[in-house]
Formats: sequence, C-alpha cells, structure tokens
Amino acid sequence: MSESNAPSRTAHKGGNGRAQRDAYDLPRVLEIAVTAFNEHGYDATSMGNLADRLGTSKSAIYYHVAGKEDLLRLALERAIGELEKVLDEPGAKSGSAAERLRFVLSGAVRVLVDDLPFVTLLLRVRGNSDIERSALERRRRFDHAISRLVDEARDEGSLRADVDAAVTTRLLFGMINSIVEWYKPGGSITREQLTEDVLTVAFDGLTKR
Amino acid sequence: MSESNAPSRTAHKGGNGRAQRDAYDLPRVLEIAVTAFNEHGYDATSMGNLADRLGTSKSAIYYHVAGKEDLLRLALERAIGELEKVLDEPGAKSGSAAERLRFVLSGAVRVLVDDLPFVTLLLRVRGNSDIERSALERRRRFDHAISRLVDEARDEGSLRADVDAAVTTRLLFGMINSIVEWYKPGGSITREQLTEDVLTVAFDGLTKR
Repeated sequence: MSESNAPSRTAHKGGNGRAQRDAYDLPRVLEIAVTAFNEHGYDATSMGNLADRLGTSKSAIYYHVAGKEDLLRLALERAIGELEKVLDEPGAKSGSAAERLRFVLSGAVRVLVDDLPFVTLLLRVRGNSDIERSALERRRRFDHAISRLVDEARDEGSLRADVDAAVTTRLLFGMINSIVEWYKPGGSITREQLTEDVLTVAFDGLTKR
Repeated sequence: MSESNAPSRTAHKGGNGRAQRDAYDLPRVLEIAVTAFNEHGYDATSMGNLADRLGTSKSAIYYHVAGKEDLLRLALERAIGELEKVLDEPGAKSGSAAERLRFVLSGAVRVLVDDLPFVTLLLRVRGNSDIERSALERRRRFDHAISRLVDEARDEGSLRADVDAAVTTRLLFGMINSIVEWYKPGGSITREQLTEDVLTVAFDGLTKR
C-alpha cells in the first residue's frame, strides 16, 4: 500500500486547528466509506465524496489511511477476517460434521448481520484489483471449508446424499448470502431468530412434518 | 422511447451495401447487449462497444432498436415476461397451494436456466431509470405472487409455520436467485436435476431421514 500520494498525516492539524481525528476516527471513516462503496460502487466513490459525507476535509481522512484502496482493504479484511474467525472457534472443531456445519453456518449468519455492510461489500467484489483478488481468494477458502464440512456430513450419514454435493453447498450459500440483500438489523426479526430460521429451512426444509 | 437520436433505420444499407440486418438480427444483438451489460454494467456499455462486439457498425444496431435503452427494455421484458408466463400456466392455477408453489418454483428455475443472462440482468436492476423501475415493479409483483403461495401453503398446513413467513420467502428466493451466479448451462448438472435438487433442499431440507 503506497502512501506516496497521501498528504502528510498531520497536515490537517494546521490551519483551523481542529482536532479532526477525534471527531472522525477510523471506524467511523470506514463505516461511511463502506456505505458509499455499496451505494455507488467503489470506482464511482472518490475521497472527496467521502470527505463530503463525513462533513470534513480529505486531509482529515488521509490522517487515518493512505488512500481509497486502504479503505477497501480494511473493509474487506474486516468482513473476511470475522468469517475466518468462526472457523477457528471451538464449535467449528469438535463434534460431528453436522454439528460443526450448523455451528459454522450460525456463525456466518451472525457475522453477516453484525457486519452487514462489510459483508455486502465482500460479496460484491469481482476481482478488479489485487486487494479484491486477495479477498476473493480468502472467501473461496472459507467457502471451501464449508463445502468440505458438507461433504463430511454426507459421508457420516447426517446429510442426504441424493442431492448433488456442489449444488447443496451453492444453495446453502445462496440462501445465507441473500440475507445481506433484505435483512434489516434492529427490525422485527432478531439475529437469533434469523439464525434459527435459516438452520431450520436448510436442514429440515419447508414441509410440515 | 424516443428515437430522435437514432440514425435512420435504413442508413446502414447505403455505402458498402451489405445486408447487415440479416447477419445481426435482433435476438443476436440483444444477446450480445445483455452479455455486455452483465460484464461491464449498463452505464459503462456504449452502442459503440456493442457494435465492436458484433463486428458491425452502430447503424446496423440502430436498424433494430432506437438506442441502448431499447435494448435494456427488451432484455428485461424477456426475463420478467417469461417469469410471469409461469404464473399463467395451468399448473400454477390448480391443485393444493403446496403443489402450485412447487410448480411455480420449478418454472422459475427453468426460466433462470433457459434465459440465464437475461434473468441475471433483471436481478441486478436497481431502479435507476423508468425502464428499470418498471421491471422492478413487475418483479416485485411476481415475488409477491410466490409469497402469497407460501402463505396459502402454510394456511393449508402443508408448510411449517414455526419459521417467519417473510423469512421463508426471502430464503427461497435467495436460494433460487443464486443460481444465476454459479450455474453453467450445458455442464454436468442438467436443468431437470437442478430443479429437482432445489425442490428437495427447499421442501425437505438437507438432513437425511
């Protein structure tokens, strides 16, 4: 990440003398950036747009990051990093494959809900730069870990084997990833209820028994 | 749809005298346009780009359509029109709600597969113009028809009622719409197998019984 184009990180402290870095800390800058990227696309969003949204100057943003690429990198890191953490939790490592699969899917739903705009950005990445390709590669590895869990759960006899394994995994992801398109955090459906509903539909299906 | 900016529909017949409209008929133009819109985005695609892809002149395209908006309108019409037709078929109108729901979901998968690039375009529309808003509105009506079928099927006792109805519908759409992201027509999974797998996962779940 080159910083050659960025103004000095203390430049904004001159002139008006406001301590802008206190008012616009990195998490806030990142949140605004991710919202703008999701709404208008990464390419269509300039550092000037972000400064306008924050009601500050570009140099106040350059205090925190070297540039727009840095914001993209940090945002994608947060999304994929949180997903990867799920795979490292104890529940992802012990129990039957079916239990581990349920644990990881629950964890994925939790991350989607808690970091909704970040995961939305991650899911829209198409590999247009090294930063995007690196995030895509990590996402592929995460997807592959779940895909292996599905295979294991089939092998142990927990999951049905009359549906193509690859199709099964794709449909699972389709269901879960769609959450970023319609779920409203803080609405009538709690995160816990959503998680429960996803697991019920995925494992037990819609048919009443 | 204003044609004021379009060259005369016969303009390309002058000059070299080739009967270009025979080589580049409307279905072919539309197919190339949809592929370009999906790959690069509608805004980033110019009539010049489309002419290049077709290996012809812009005027040869203007023979068929008044402009880029026309291509978008025709492409979206094809996708949503085919989906709407499913709701008019006899299988969507008779039988239990569960049977009708299965029929409509099967039909939706069939349209997704048969008109994959067209439905992909439809699913990416965000309402940036009257054409897009009109397609979105028709898609909303289609989604609502399925949502009503889900409600009916719950009411008749075919579907489980312990999952939020709105969540059920959203997860169903998430699963089905994701098909455009990964399914390769002509690959190892036939359209019929895919349809069967989608219905099995949606109605019966992944758990082996």
